[in-house]
Parts: sequence; C-alpha cells; structure tokens
Amino acid sequence: MGSMAFDSVKTPFGEREDAIGGSATYFSVSASYFTDVRLVAVVGSDFPQGELDFLAERSVDLSGLERSEGKTFRWKGEYGFDLNTAHTLDTQLNVFQDFRPQVPAAFSESEFVFLANIDPELQVSVVEQVKSPQLVACDTMNFWIEGKRDELVRMFGMVDMAVINEGEVRELAGESNILKASRKILEMGPQTLLVKRGEYGALLIQKDSVFSAPGLPLEDIYDPTGAGDTFAGGFMGYLSSKGDLSPGALRRAVIFGSVMASFNVESFSYDRLKNLTQGEIEARYRQFSELAHFDRL
Amino acid sequence: MGSMAFDSVKTPFGEREDAIGGSATYFSVSASYFTDVRLVAVVGSDFPQGELDFLAERSVDLSGLERSEGKTFRWKGEYGFDLNTAHTLDTQLNVFQDFRPQVPAAFSESEFVFLANIDPELQVSVVEQVKSPQLVACDTMNFWIEGKRDELVRMFGMVDMAVINEGEVRELAGESNILKASRKILEMGPQTLLVKRGEYGALLIQKDSVFSAPGLPLEDIYDPTGAGDTFAGGFMGYLSSKGDLSPGALRRAVIFGSVMASFNVESFSYDRLKNLTQGEIEARYRQFSELAHFDRL
Repeated sequence: MGSMAFDSVKTPFGEREDAIGGSATYFSVSASYFTDVRLVAVVGSDFPQGELDFLAERSVDLSGLERSEGKTFRWKGEYGFDLNTAHTLDTQLNVFQDFRPQVPAAFSESEFVFLANIDPELQVSVVEQVKSPQLVACDTMNFWIEGKRDELVRMFGMVDMAVINEGEVRELAGESNILKASRKILEMGPQTLLVKRGEYGALLIQKDSVFSAPGLPLEDIYDPTGAGDTFAGGFMGYLSSKGDLSPGALRRAVIFGSVMASFNVESFSYDRLKNLTQGEIEARYRQFSELAHFDRL
Repeated sequence: MGSMAFDSVKTPFGEREDAIGGSATYFSVSASYFTDVRLVAVVGSDFPQGELDFLAERSVDLSGLERSEGKTFRWKGEYGFDLNTAHTLDTQLNVFQDFRPQVPAAFSESEFVFLANIDPELQVSVVEQVKSPQLVACDTMNFWIEGKRDELVRMFGMVDMAVINEGEVRELAGESNILKASRKILEMGPQTLLVKRGEYGALLIQKDSVFSAPGLPLEDIYDPTGAGDTFAGGFMGYLSSKGDLSPGALRRAVIFGSVMASFNVESFSYDRLKNLTQGEIEARYRQFSELAHFDRL
C-alpha cells in the first residue's frame, strides 16, 4: 500500500517531467521480480493505462487500485551533487488527499504487508484490514514524526518491522547514537528495524544482533528517487518468495533489496527496473558478495 | 612518521585537557599490537617521560624521536553530537614548526612506511630517506589540498597507497562521485586508495576492485580523536606482520585497522589502546565478521 504519482525530478545529471513514480509503483515493480504482488493505491483519471498494463503484465494484482476522478498525486523535487537529500519544490496531493485505502477481501489473507510512507492513521487502517500476516513492515517520514507523533508511535506498536532512513531513526528517537536510537524504536514495538543509509547501505537491527549491508559504489547514479521503496520491494519480495524469516534469510533479503535499489538509481523513474533479468539480479548479488567479503579469523 | 602532541578535547560526553595525542602516537601504539614499530617524530621538553617509557615497553623504537627544547605541539578541538567533524579551537605548532624528519640509518631498510598527515614536502623527504620499502602509505588533510596542492600531487606520485577521509577524496579529485573521485586519485600514482568514512567504515579501492568494510555501530563513543591514525596503525601493523600484500590480506588488514579504531573511540586519548589483549582484538574481529556476513548465492 502506497502512492502512485507523477514525479518531476531534476538531478545534476538531467531532468525528467511527469515521470511515473510513487512508493507503491517502485515497491511493486521491484517485488515483482521475486513474488506475486498485490497493490493498494489510488490514481487519477490522467494516469496512463499503459503503465497499469505494464504492472499487470508483471503479475501485480491491481484489484486494490482505486481510480478516482481528478488528477494523480504530483511531486516535484531536485537533488544536489551529493544526491542524498531531495529538496521538494512542489507537492500536489490531488486524488491522494482523500485516499482511504481499501484492502479487497481477496487480499485480506496476505502474509507479507508493506505500508509505504503515508499518514500513520491510514497505515493502521490497512493493518486492521489484514487477517493474520506473517510480517508487516512500514516506512514513514519526518513529516509524520513531527506532525503526528502519537499516531505514528501507535502504528509502530502494530508492526513487526520499520524500514526508515537513518535521519528519521535519530529524529524519532531523539538520540544521535544510531544504536541507542534504534533500541528506543525497537521498544516501541517492532522486533526488527531496517535503517536505510543511502549510499552507505543499510543496517538490520534486532534486539541482539546487527547486520551491516554495504552500499554498492556506482559510477553512474542518475536519480535516487524511489530507491528506498525499491529497496523495500526487493527485501519484502525475497522474504515472501521464501516464506523464511530466519536471520540468514533476512540478511539475504537486505542484499536483494540493495541490489534492486542499485539498479533503480541508474536511471530516471523506474526505467531500469522495467526489463531486468534474473541473471542480472544474481550477478549484482554476487557483486555485493565480492564487495563485502573478508576472511573469518 | 608523524606528530606527537597534547590534545585538549571536548565531546558531548566529557572533556580532557592536555591528553597525550598525535598521529605518530596513535599509529605506533595501534601497530605495536601486530609488529615492531619504528617512530619518527618530535617532542618538546615538556613531554612526559612516562609516556615514552610506555611506548618503549610496547616495542616502539624511539631512536627516531627528536627531543627539542621548547613546547610540544598542542591541539584543542571540540566535537558536536554527530562526532564526525572536529572543530579546531586552537593549534600551537611549537617544536613541530621546525620539524625536519630524520630517518635514522637503522630505519632506512624499513619495508612498511606510514607518512602521517604533515606538510607533503616533509613526507617526500621521508620517502627519500628509505631505501626500498615494500609499501609506503600516506595520509593528508584539506589544509594541504588547499594550500600545497602541487607538492601533494608530487608526493602522491611517490607512494603506493593513500589513506584519507572521504571528504578529502572528493576535494582532492574535484568530483563528488566517490568511485570516479577515487579513480582520479589512483591516476596520480597510488595503486591503492583506502577511504576512511568515519562511522560508515572504509572503502579499499584498487584499479579493478572495491572492498567495503563496515563501521561497527557502538553504543558508547567518547572521543573520535586519533581514530584515523589508529586505523592506519592496525592496517599497516597487520600487513607488516604478515609481509603479504595479496587482496585477501589487504582486506583482513582493513578489518584489523577498523577493530583498533573501534577500541580507540571508546575512551579519551589512547587510554583504551593501552592494555588490550590479543583475545579482545580477535573477539572484536569476529564481531566484524558477524556484523558483515551474508550468504553467497
């Protein structure tokens, strides 16, 4: 469950007007390389049917997609040379403003649920519509940490995992040390925290363990938009395909998420995710292994 | 070869006046856990004999230590909550001002040479005093990148490896992408670049390979002063003890360097490095293995 959008993005390497974006889009396409995906989102009447057809071809079930009269959510942003922070220039919520996610009956037995960044009250409403999932993970952002903290903390009490940016971990916990901050968030409810660190990779933190996944240094990064949702899609998609939540599977899932995100940033919109092969995905996983390997003592 | 100093340091977790510091001090103590060390540095008449005795006990050969009339180099700095950047409040070069490093004849056959951060012309003079080393590595800082760029580039042409901070890599190369920036620096001469990324670990970059070493998330970081030199000391000390420059040995050396740095930041000055055991060092290496491990495909 998340957003579908038109993004107008400017980076030091080019710009793109009204490209297809949105958290649900990036997540679904990424996860579709591993498993069947069920999407809950809303689009306006201006959303191109061709893009929806593409999702359907990739086995994304669109029966939870609401098509409203009006315009699709639009976001306009810009990145500086460090590519780490997006500067929002304009946001038009449009049909997203009144979005009240409805989980179709056929989706209510879903075992893996991802709540992309949206009003935490709506995230709660989605959790309540799913019967007995094996894993519920959520994203959020500083906007909700600052504006709806109580609702956010309540939502965190209902999920198994949070997948959030390092800066948001620090802000939510009010603590600069990342390990101490993470422990505070685990006390709010989630058993697992997946900390996104941009080009520095990710940390998977549980009560008694920490896994550090590297970021793959890339020579050509064009557009980081959607990297976090693409990462979450690869992560959840891999777990769902295996039905295995062991420590080893979680670590492999973080690497598959990183693999998918590393492809995504190589192009604008989700162009690079449109026609990946299993061979390319596996070759890049091996690149991560080569990147991070060192001998045990 | 490097500095010995009195550091006055303030961090969010406390402060210490006139603690023993300096790049040569941190490097030597760290490397001494792996190999015999030969130190080239200068101290004033105010430097405590007890600290020199401690170094000698740890098999640090002090015959290259110059004892000058006058006061030892003094640095005063402060760290904010992120602990990543030191804000220099005061620098008194004192006897370091006129330091012209003299490599004793008995040191001239040294096979592993580390040139800590100092005027690049003096780094060159040290390289010229060593006969046929197996590995020469250097550090530097933004001050020389901005003020003595030509001399620095000449020095880089004479070393095998540079061990520098990520921000310095970008500044020296004039390129924000870390991989492209690193390749530009490799073109200046070094075959290997070791990029220090603070809490995010390190990258070991050669023409055709990249190794990403994780940073160990620590709950208690008191003082990052000297972390980079401690890292370099563990790295060079391990390599020197093995006499092996294979890719696998370089990677293990990066982890041993990271292990030593992770201890160092747990206390002010080099207190934590004073009485480590081999068992503690190995246990922490295993912690790094556990932190970074994921299954191959």
